Amino acid sequence: MQLTETIRRWKEIQRTLYSYRHAIALLGTDGDTVAPRGGAAERGLTLGTLTNASYNIQTGAEMLALMDELSAHAAELDRQTARELEVVRENYERVNRIPEKEYTDYTILTNEAGDVWHDAKHDNDFARFAPYLEKIVAYKKSFAAYYDDSRPVYDVLLDEYETGLTAAVADSYFDTVKAAVVPLVQAIKDKGAQPDTEFMHAECPVEKQRELSAWLMKVMTVDPRHCVLGETEHPFTSEMNKDDVRITTHYYPRDFISSAFSVIHESGHALYELNGGDEFRGTVLACGTSMGIHESQSRFYENIIGRSREFTAFLLPELQRIFPPFAALSAEQLYRAVNRAEPSLIRIEADELTYSLHIIVRYEIEKALFAGDITVAELPAVWRELYKKYLGVDVPDDTRGVLQDSHWGNGQFGYFPSYSLGSAYGAQMLNSMKKDVDVFACAAKGELAPIVKWLSDHIYCYSKLLKPAEVIMNCCGEPFEPKYYVDYLSNKFSDIYNL
Amino acid sequence: MQLTETIRRWKEIQRTLYSYRHAIALLGTDGDTVAPRGGAAERGLTLGTLTNASYNIQTGAEMLALMDELSAHAAELDRQTARELEVVRENYERVNRIPEKEYTDYTILTNEAGDVWHDAKHDNDFARFAPYLEKIVAYKKSFAAYYDDSRPVYDVLLDEYETGLTAAVADSYFDTVKAAVVPLVQAIKDKGAQPDTEFMHAECPVEKQRELSAWLMKVMTVDPRHCVLGETEHPFTSEMNKDDVRITTHYYPRDFISSAFSVIHESGHALYELNGGDEFRGTVLACGTSMGIHESQSRFYENIIGRSREFTAFLLPELQRIFPPFAALSAEQLYRAVNRAEPSLIRIEADELTYSLHIIVRYEIEKALFAGDITVAELPAVWRELYKKYLGVDVPDDTRGVLQDSHWGNGQFGYFPSYSLGSAYGAQMLNSMKKDVDVFACAAKGELAPIVKWLSDHIYCYSKLLKPAEVIMNCCGEPFEPKYYVDYLSNKFSDIYNL
Repeated sequence: MQLTETIRRWKEIQRTLYSYRHAIALLGTDGDTVAPRGGAAERGLTLGTLTNASYNIQTGAEMLALMDELSAHAAELDRQTARELEVVRENYERVNRIPEKEYTDYTILTNEAGDVWHDAKHDNDFARFAPYLEKIVAYKKSFAAYYDDSRPVYDVLLDEYETGLTAAVADSYFDTVKAAVVPLVQAIKDKGAQPDTEFMHAECPVEKQRELSAWLMKVMTVDPRHCVLGETEHPFTSEMNKDDVRITTHYYPRDFISSAFSVIHESGHALYELNGGDEFRGTVLACGTSMGIHESQSRFYENIIGRSREFTAFLLPELQRIFPPFAALSAEQLYRAVNRAEPSLIRIEADELTYSLHIIVRYEIEKALFAGDITVAELPAVWRELYKKYLGVDVPDDTRGVLQDSHWGNGQFGYFPSYSLGSAYGAQMLNSMKKDVDVFACAAKGELAPIVKWLSDHIYCYSKLLKPAEVIMNCCGEPFEPKYYVDYLSNKFSDIYNL
Repeated sequence: MQLTETIRRWKEIQRTLYSYRHAIALLGTDGDTVAPRGGAAERGLTLGTLTNASYNIQTGAEMLALMDELSAHAAELDRQTARELEVVRENYERVNRIPEKEYTDYTILTNEAGDVWHDAKHDNDFARFAPYLEKIVAYKKSFAAYYDDSRPVYDVLLDEYETGLTAAVADSYFDTVKAAVVPLVQAIKDKGAQPDTEFMHAECPVEKQRELSAWLMKVMTVDPRHCVLGETEHPFTSEMNKDDVRITTHYYPRDFISSAFSVIHESGHALYELNGGDEFRGTVLACGTSMGIHESQSRFYENIIGRSREFTAFLLPELQRIFPPFAALSAEQLYRAVNRAEPSLIRIEADELTYSLHIIVRYEIEKALFAGDITVAELPAVWRELYKKYLGVDVPDDTRGVLQDSHWGNGQFGYFPSYSLGSAYGAQMLNSMKKDVDVFACAAKGELAPIVKWLSDHIYCYSKLLKPAEVIMNCCGEPFEPKYYVDYLSNKFSDIYNL
């Protein structure tokens, strides 16, 4: 086959996969938002059919032939096509090296484990979940070895969510965070005074909150022609494609600040997808490059911008307009309230400062588990020990302890670190951005366009062309450096708590 | 291959097609309801990919081999499998006999014609649309001949929307309707007195209308675990599968009765799908059997039940609760107002009595067009002539005349008669149902369950196993008979208008 014909067909087959991705994403999003509850079983069968069809294309003889043909002409490929080949090959190898029977058994196991986890969490019964977790860990070890038996298992797992990440890099990062944050949290505790947050829990009608969401999305420069907001138990972002991104939030009548920051967070994810490079449309590169870089965006907007003194001051008049009980509130009161930092039990409710400590607990446990240093049976005890050590809290039960997250039951080991890394990436990006943009002057005026443009030009437009480390190097001019993050946290919280 | 293995694979391949049908229906429904406007182009590409994949399965070598294998064992097949074979083969033949190039050209043409129709309607410019219509008519003639050149073209077209329907049957039906309805409409006109409907156009907040919709769906026994309501420009029903049906309505602040009857109408469609036979799940038989039988259900609930004296009396207290301006209204006033019959220009706004006259105009035009008795260029003049003849109205422009409906630009010739047939089927079903159920006593109490059960047992549970004529024979014990419909209309409107 001629190379041009190979490339034509290569682009065409990616376009087909892009369509399946859209349909599969829509089925999932619809199931979480609009679909009637009773359609779940049939939806599962439809998802199975489409996932299977997409898998067959990704691992079929034609795809293999195309990959080999392109590899044979590696030197002649343009940068984009070369990167597409790299991504497709990696997806292919990740799955195709696993014997089919093992992969099917694993899929059945994790499906079941999800239900068992749900019940075990509800009943505070870790023992019921443990046998599943043991099997999942064994599968993950075995899969990692199929993929690359020259590297430690946990490195292979980390790499799946954050390309290029190793335990060595993560260790150094988390050590830096621990050294700065643990004493900071202790100092705040010793100080003993917390800002008042009671006023945030007055009842605010959902209709009012919806109004606030629309206003926030507009401030965030999210284009309503390409992004709509839904309502779900847990907020999320789901991209059908570059032209169609869905975000969701959850309205609590007595916690309207929660939804406001969810909308900002998910809008950050959406902006990354909506501003991706047009040239990647219809290819495997048409999406954010990694979990960590994605979280860097959502957390940048939510915490660095959204919870800044400047932006909360900008926010206040609108909050007061929508919610009259805020009339007497000062900007400083609001700023301190939305930044209240306090050790707690539940990761997804944690504040900006203590959040990474929750991640460190999970990271250390995962690493030890895959190194064989601890067993599944020991997890609840290790969990309690580490929560006491890093957060200073006593875990009263496994429901609010080792069973709180769904990730492990789904086989998502190596995922957690990307949440924390995202925050650190964001602080480093802020440092670079400040050289070009008067970031907090923009935040003070609620004019975020220059910030979004900087991020679009330096990050979003590359979609998945660059790997995470390349994204950092490209927009910051240096490799990943955690000191920006710990400096940012130290400055912000020392100021708020007068340390 | 063993027959049992053939049948196993036959069921499996239908299940795959059922999944594609779900995904395709969801993409369309999502596009009309939730999706951001700017996602249309990408959605079109995704729909193209999935439609193509489904088409390739339906017309592929394996499907052909399975059909041949089953045909060779026709005598051994159970009733359901035999009917599945019949339906799959018909779908196959309808498309597969058309040369691929011709079909592709036709698809491109109708896509373009849809846009041209839209503009032509807007600008009252039939001449712009005419060349497209001429080409579409030529294609439809040619396709009908590929499929079956032994029958008149228009019979082949009618049969596509209502299996078994011929122009001979339709002629006899429409002649009966004309003979009864044209003089009835004239008598009402001569009488000169119309019920007051002004009160229905007071402003009613959309929030209140949403509340009414939920209440109506409950009265209709629509299970919220399997059916949800959305909002669109034009109301519709879309079934993902038996477990998941979506209906929509449109809320006009100054016409809340319009949405109420839309919800009843679409709920009728939904009940048909929701109560289909479980044994047909995942097969080509898992849906309503035809357009006409589907409309029989929506119109039965909307007009025969919904606009009955008994049901409107039941409705009134709830309307008064939701909408205080109705407090002084009597049940009889409401009944007469929702049944106001008056010739008009626009089909989709027509009342129960004059609706079929709108259809007769279209039917006579289509028949003459495909018989070669009139040309496309003559359509606007013929349209005006027939509207004057049957409805007594002067058509002021083509926007409100021959250009009002989208059907012809989409190639949907032969579709219109099924709307009117549905009403007539419904009246015949009512006659049979009354032998088992005290229909209007149920309507008076708002207890529709016995009515839904009768329809489920006699119609819904057969899904597409029975053809339309078999449905009528099965539930009524006699062939289709239009006299029930004209008797029903004569009695109802003679009473309302004291004729």
